[in-house]
Amino acid sequence: MRDWQGVTKILGPVLGWDRVLRGAAVEPYAADRWGRSALPPVVFVPQSQDHVSMIARTLYEAGLPFVARGRGTGMSGGALPMGRAAVISFEKMDRIIEVRPDAFEMTVEPGALLSSVQAAAARAGLMYPPDPASADECSIGGNVAENAGGLSCVKYGVTGEYVLALDVVLPDGRCCSLGSHARKDVAGLDLKRLVIGSEGMLALVTQIVLRLVPRPAAEATICCWFAEADQAVAALQGMMQAGVVPARAELIARECLRILAEDGVAVHPGAGALLLLGLDGTVSGVRDEQARAEEILRRQALALEAASGEQAEVLWKIRSALSPALKKLAPMKINEDIAVPLDRQAECIRFTENLAARTGLMIAVFGHAGDGNLHVNFMIRPEQRKEAEQAVELLFAEVVRLGGTITGEHGIGVAKAPWAGLRLDPVTLALCRAVKSAFDPKGLCNPGKALYGPVEGEISRLV
Amino acid sequence: MRDWQGVTKILGPVLGWDRVLRGAAVEPYAADRWGRSALPPVVFVPQSQDHVSMIARTLYEAGLPFVARGRGTGMSGGALPMGRAAVISFEKMDRIIEVRPDAFEMTVEPGALLSSVQAAAARAGLMYPPDPASADECSIGGNVAENAGGLSCVKYGVTGEYVLALDVVLPDGRCCSLGSHARKDVAGLDLKRLVIGSEGMLALVTQIVLRLVPRPAAEATICCWFAEADQAVAALQGMMQAGVVPARAELIARECLRILAEDGVAVHPGAGALLLLGLDGTVSGVRDEQARAEEILRRQALALEAASGEQAEVLWKIRSALSPALKKLAPMKINEDIAVPLDRQAECIRFTENLAARTGLMIAVFGHAGDGNLHVNFMIRPEQRKEAEQAVELLFAEVVRLGGTITGEHGIGVAKAPWAGLRLDPVTLALCRAVKSAFDPKGLCNPGKALYGPVEGEISRLV
Repeated sequence: MRDWQGVTKILGPVLGWDRVLRGAAVEPYAADRWGRSALPPVVFVPQSQDHVSMIARTLYEAGLPFVARGRGTGMSGGALPMGRAAVISFEKMDRIIEVRPDAFEMTVEPGALLSSVQAAAARAGLMYPPDPASADECSIGGNVAENAGGLSCVKYGVTGEYVLALDVVLPDGRCCSLGSHARKDVAGLDLKRLVIGSEGMLALVTQIVLRLVPRPAAEATICCWFAEADQAVAALQGMMQAGVVPARAELIARECLRILAEDGVAVHPGAGALLLLGLDGTVSGVRDEQARAEEILRRQALALEAASGEQAEVLWKIRSALSPALKKLAPMKINEDIAVPLDRQAECIRFTENLAARTGLMIAVFGHAGDGNLHVNFMIRPEQRKEAEQAVELLFAEVVRLGGTITGEHGIGVAKAPWAGLRLDPVTLALCRAVKSAFDPKGLCNPGKALYGPVEGEISRLV
Repeated sequence: MRDWQGVTKILGPVLGWDRVLRGAAVEPYAADRWGRSALPPVVFVPQSQDHVSMIARTLYEAGLPFVARGRGTGMSGGALPMGRAAVISFEKMDRIIEVRPDAFEMTVEPGALLSSVQAAAARAGLMYPPDPASADECSIGGNVAENAGGLSCVKYGVTGEYVLALDVVLPDGRCCSLGSHARKDVAGLDLKRLVIGSEGMLALVTQIVLRLVPRPAAEATICCWFAEADQAVAALQGMMQAGVVPARAELIARECLRILAEDGVAVHPGAGALLLLGLDGTVSGVRDEQARAEEILRRQALALEAASGEQAEVLWKIRSALSPALKKLAPMKINEDIAVPLDRQAECIRFTENLAARTGLMIAVFGHAGDGNLHVNFMIRPEQRKEAEQAVELLFAEVVRLGGTITGEHGIGVAKAPWAGLRLDPVTLALCRAVKSAFDPKGLCNPGKALYGPVEGEISRLV
């Protein structure tokens, strides 16, 4: 069995020694946005599929663990090197390889920034819809690993809906292609969809073919204030049942509005919920949808304003002002991203309000109301941590009772591994582990995550 | 080890003896629409998940194979009982369990007819979009097994995009739930998507939660004649790039038009391709899209007519007249459902025309041009079979060269198993088999299909 020094000696000359990081150089690779860290023994920075395959084969033969890393913007510790895993950083595999506008597709490397992908699509007159808030910093490979969502999922769906094909390196270094350039493809098991959202536990993605859509000619924004979250959710449902599916439907609940008001945002008096809607489509299509939406929304709304262009940007700034405003309130923020059925959102928000009243914890809710994906933020002091974690567990249990899930778009990673069993029944968990073993018999590819949960000793080692 | 008599003795009293079919009663379960058949030793007709679990557990313990069957409308032999497998028929598990309009979802049993699902959605003012032509006869469970498509995929996507959750029975009889009622869910590996399109090789689906969408308020049809298929494809691309994505985009190529003309359909003089487009959306949205589409289409079209309501139905009858017209032409029809990238369709159609000229075989192409899924029909006499199969192999090789796939929506089943290796590289095939083993270590669930290919002796046994 080779040790780290042994494999480094093999890989250094292949990758180039400047692509093998040791010592202090590995520090930037220890954490993601979850807020904890673990130092990797070594970081490899491949520049081709051949490099990735060589790294995986060498480590796998030596029995040494590794984890793929995009840009480290994950929210659940998915890219943390648990179990003294090496980091394979895709930062230098960031090319936009080809855009084929007539095929409505684009081929990219996993390290490409999401914003670069979006921009390349726009230059071709097309659009890549998934839009996590971290677009300027996150990689498309990380998006694939977590099946990332964002604001536009209500109309356009999540990352997985836009991946036509993946080139991957298996944990033992073998290469294969999953999916094809065809829009419909039922040849063989859908391993492509299995790898999407697998949090880097099955394979290392080295190339991605993305599906693109036409760029909408028009957009409009509606900002709608309600006395209660129930009314906002009901109005949105009514609007969608009438055939108006917004591109974005963001709900900001009572506690968040209070925080925004304290931060100087002009919150409508008496409002307990804000619904921010983005419509897109053809020029007259948007005009028509806006008229229908406003008619339905006005029945329950306290106030409503519509805008486009720069005016609309001002409205969306209310939404983006939220995260910084929340962060100022307490030394720690636990941001959960639960999702519930569309008709259970009001019930879920009431549950969080009661939970806050009962525990005295500050809990602020906002989220993607068009797909029931709510961000529940616990703003706490360090000494409230245990109490907050107990409250999170109560929330998760309620969410599962409502038919929902403990993570809509952030992943289980390390952060939610202790609660995976709340959402997944024992048979499903066992099946996930068996499937993982089919890809990775030695269990070396991103160990200690999602399906396995962090080992106690490991948690305490986290800084 | 128990034999068929032994397991029947156990299961008869549990299911009721009228739900265990033997002798001549099994004959209706021997074939699907592929055109070959294999008699099962016994057919079980469960009425609940408990029944299915009991059947699977009993057979698995006894080491006896089985295959799930929806309504037997598959096109690739996926439900054929190879290897003397028992059939588990879901025809009596056909309930629409619940429709929740406010959650835009519906829970159904797998034996429900697709047309019943569509009708239940419509009664709730909503729509279930996937629409294979066999909607009145096929089951939703079969749709899930093959990840079925249909005409509306270009705008709405395939079956997999509409499945929120699946209850399944594993081959050994254990039960588990995959997915949830949430729109976004990244908890655990995406086993739900893996089971979708797995052609019944991984698990037995017993309940399905479907996502529904708003019912469009307006529809319009455009019937557009072109001199060449290239122009039809280019016009459609231009229209989509301009932001008009049709719900349906059916292309009927030259040879099919000739056949239709002989059958009395009024084909436009000089036309080498027909594009039939269906638009849907809000009233003014459709009006707007229609105007833009017509403007773009007219640049290259020989002639164009638009219609709605009954007039539109007349136009769509041209499309549905095609299959019967083709069937009359020859004793045998081999219907392939290849898919290629959107920008390679014209090239693929030209390839089939050259293939027909070179071989003297009658080859007629029509298909879903919005997603590159073309049905290539070989109308042959029995003595041309070998020649036709060689031509099919050439077609498959070309399709793979173009970046496409050998099956867009029908599945590999038995029919295309000999060519699975053309589309799937050896590493992917090995991985598919390893994943299959994680679900079904004994290899008893729908044996002899897709990943394994039919055993020579078995093919010859097929009637």
